[in-house]
Amino acid sequence: MFKKILIANRGEIAMRVIRTCKEMGIKTVAVYSTADADSLHVRFADEAVCIGPAPSTDSYLKMANIIAAAEITNADAIHPGYGFLSENAKFSKICEEHEIKFIGASADMIEKMGDKATAKATMKAAGVPTIPGSEGILDSYEETETLADEMGYPVMLKATAGGGGKGMRAVWKKEDLKKAWDSARQEAGAAFGNDGMYMEKLIEEPRHIEIQVVGDSNGRACHLSERDCSVQRRHQKLTEETPSPFMTDELREKMGAAAVKAAEFIKYEGAGTVEFLVDKHRNFYFMEMNTRIQVEHPITEQVVDYDLIREQILVAAGVPISGKNYYPQLHSIECRINAEDPFKDFRPSPGKITTLHIPGGHGVRVDTHVYSGYSIPPNYDSMIAKLITTAQTREEAINKMKRALDEFIIEGISTTVPFHRQLMDHPDYIAGNYTTKFMEDFEMQELSKE
Amino acid sequence: MFKKILIANRGEIAMRVIRTCKEMGIKTVAVYSTADADSLHVRFADEAVCIGPAPSTDSYLKMANIIAAAEITNADAIHPGYGFLSENAKFSKICEEHEIKFIGASADMIEKMGDKATAKATMKAAGVPTIPGSEGILDSYEETETLADEMGYPVMLKATAGGGGKGMRAVWKKEDLKKAWDSARQEAGAAFGNDGMYMEKLIEEPRHIEIQVVGDSNGRACHLSERDCSVQRRHQKLTEETPSPFMTDELREKMGAAAVKAAEFIKYEGAGTVEFLVDKHRNFYFMEMNTRIQVEHPITEQVVDYDLIREQILVAAGVPISGKNYYPQLHSIECRINAEDPFKDFRPSPGKITTLHIPGGHGVRVDTHVYSGYSIPPNYDSMIAKLITTAQTREEAINKMKRALDEFIIEGISTTVPFHRQLMDHPDYIAGNYTTKFMEDFEMQELSKE
Repeated sequence: MFKKILIANRGEIAMRVIRTCKEMGIKTVAVYSTADADSLHVRFADEAVCIGPAPSTDSYLKMANIIAAAEITNADAIHPGYGFLSENAKFSKICEEHEIKFIGASADMIEKMGDKATAKATMKAAGVPTIPGSEGILDSYEETETLADEMGYPVMLKATAGGGGKGMRAVWKKEDLKKAWDSARQEAGAAFGNDGMYMEKLIEEPRHIEIQVVGDSNGRACHLSERDCSVQRRHQKLTEETPSPFMTDELREKMGAAAVKAAEFIKYEGAGTVEFLVDKHRNFYFMEMNTRIQVEHPITEQVVDYDLIREQILVAAGVPISGKNYYPQLHSIECRINAEDPFKDFRPSPGKITTLHIPGGHGVRVDTHVYSGYSIPPNYDSMIAKLITTAQTREEAINKMKRALDEFIIEGISTTVPFHRQLMDHPDYIAGNYTTKFMEDFEMQELSKE
Repeated sequence: MFKKILIANRGEIAMRVIRTCKEMGIKTVAVYSTADADSLHVRFADEAVCIGPAPSTDSYLKMANIIAAAEITNADAIHPGYGFLSENAKFSKICEEHEIKFIGASADMIEKMGDKATAKATMKAAGVPTIPGSEGILDSYEETETLADEMGYPVMLKATAGGGGKGMRAVWKKEDLKKAWDSARQEAGAAFGNDGMYMEKLIEEPRHIEIQVVGDSNGRACHLSERDCSVQRRHQKLTEETPSPFMTDELREKMGAAAVKAAEFIKYEGAGTVEFLVDKHRNFYFMEMNTRIQVEHPITEQVVDYDLIREQILVAAGVPISGKNYYPQLHSIECRINAEDPFKDFRPSPGKITTLHIPGGHGVRVDTHVYSGYSIPPNYDSMIAKLITTAQTREEAINKMKRALDEFIIEGISTTVPFHRQLMDHPDYIAGNYTTKFMEDFEMQELSKE
């Protein structure tokens, strides 16, 4: 087993990894930028090394400094957390060259899954459903019509040079295809000087549902069921839950099997997440695979009694997995508490936390790196805490989340606590009736004066 | 269901009850003494009523003030927490007379279980094992010898007027009984002017193991397995765990059945705890029954996914229990964090908390009412937080507790955090090899200067 792990990250995930290392009796090394000198991860690690100034390119992304810190402190492994260097093939390779175990995917694996086209082709080869579409640019209207007939309607026409919705058309039935094709091409030509088009199946009422997998060095993988991450704002997840209110036992079996197939096909080693889009008919399509721990991993831990960071470390050390799959025994919800003002278009709100009360009690977990008196630097991601509630039923988990949010006192900065509180009262959320489009129509209610 | 519950308590248990009420959609009323005006339970309840100055006799024990607060706020039930009026038969009766539901035992039940002699006789009648002994004062040596033969050795001779160990003799075999009888009587006569003696079975290597029960208004009861509370200092529990490291499946079945029998025999309604002494041969004997929620209830909640406060409220509202018993699926440990200095004989250490960092993350639960800047009043119990860790195995729960204790920063006052940290490193504790005598030999190690 590793004797000392360097955590190449900051914030709550650095704390998260340190906690599990301590529980496993493994020494820890924190690295930090000058802006993070007062961070808890620096205090709680056994050793801490400053790796440069605030811009991440000068510290948390500076591979040479991190490798130097590992060598100075004699760390035998590096845990990259999420973001920063966690899916950087070059860094994974450099670690390997320095004989420091990278607790994550190999360079080869990261490259394979990092490029979307390659990933899609690989998954197709593995027999995992991907979003049907044209192979590259469509040559003619006739080809388009034939392909649309094959895929089935609705379809989405997209300009290859497109962006901002220009040259894009949703087509719901065959009669409308020709007109859409003509107008989209014309629009694309005018806007981009390029009228090349491609086509994909249109995913109706899409939900973002992902499957957690763990693979070991023997090429074996298991899944830990799903997380529903459909509540997103500009592709940023805001809250996640497991089980998905849209899930059926049958669909879980199918998606779980597909995710395990995907992981085993590429001989995936470590914890990873296979992200799918699921349409209203419960068809599911591979989107991408994340070859790292996810922000929302705790909800899985809560419902299957499993420490995913521990498992990452064990698998990296060569310990084989049992191979059995894990199914949710409880219901768990995570709200990402960001230093943002939800009443002002989620504008970042860094600054000093003057008063802090973190909720506690039955069924409440909080993962955070902040404390009363801590100043949130403006340089990084705005997430300051993850609030997780767990209960026997979804209704109870929501009620628990409401009371925990009511208890969460953070003064000195604005946070997304009021957003989540309003979300938990939203009839569509309560009904479990939401898609990735949910936030497009969501409006914050002004708070009444007390 | 109740519309509004008044919580006749303070501190963490007031917070605990408020939390569950909020989750159930029930309004709450806090009562508080002037010394507790800045307490969180006052802030988080929907309403708060000041019921008098600091001495508990003028506030938290002042029944008239509490009933008045309930009537003013139109509360339809009172939750008494633990301590204070939670096992006061008169208060239970007064609530009933005022048509306010007392979420606890009836006056009759409290009286029945509150008097130890009555409780023991009741349990004997129910067929629950009690500590064998003489019925009152022994008339002669001959009677004593016969009884000792019946009970089996070892036995304990005790002076009826005794105290401080005077007139008390442990007798391990028949040959020593006569000599012990003579010398104990002589000693008792000289010390108290009364040489009356009684005898009890000596419990070898006793462990305090209690069974959580819940009974409903139909006279049905279930058990939620055990808690081992043997680590005690002067009869004050310091840390508790479930399952007990001393437990076997067979013993759990027997003790659980006995506790259910006890509860059903007296038609117990609500959450209660049947406390047993267990000897080294795994014989168990009824000690007492607590007709209220216990401080250490969270460890049971953690391993069976059950909210005991919720169940108390449901049962009080007449909802029947399912009747099934609950068995630990995980391992959970609670450390009571007290404002006491373990390096100075656990002397109370009230005062202002200047810095506070509460541990969090996977498998950690904290129940507390304190915050950074809070002043602990000198008037009450010194417990300021309960730190609970839960994991798949006992070893993992201990490792989690160690790291959580290391993370717990409380400045401005002394606390028992260092005691628990040393306890978690004690070889006998780690081996699960401890009895109620454990603390007699425990010595704090001086901390090395950093």
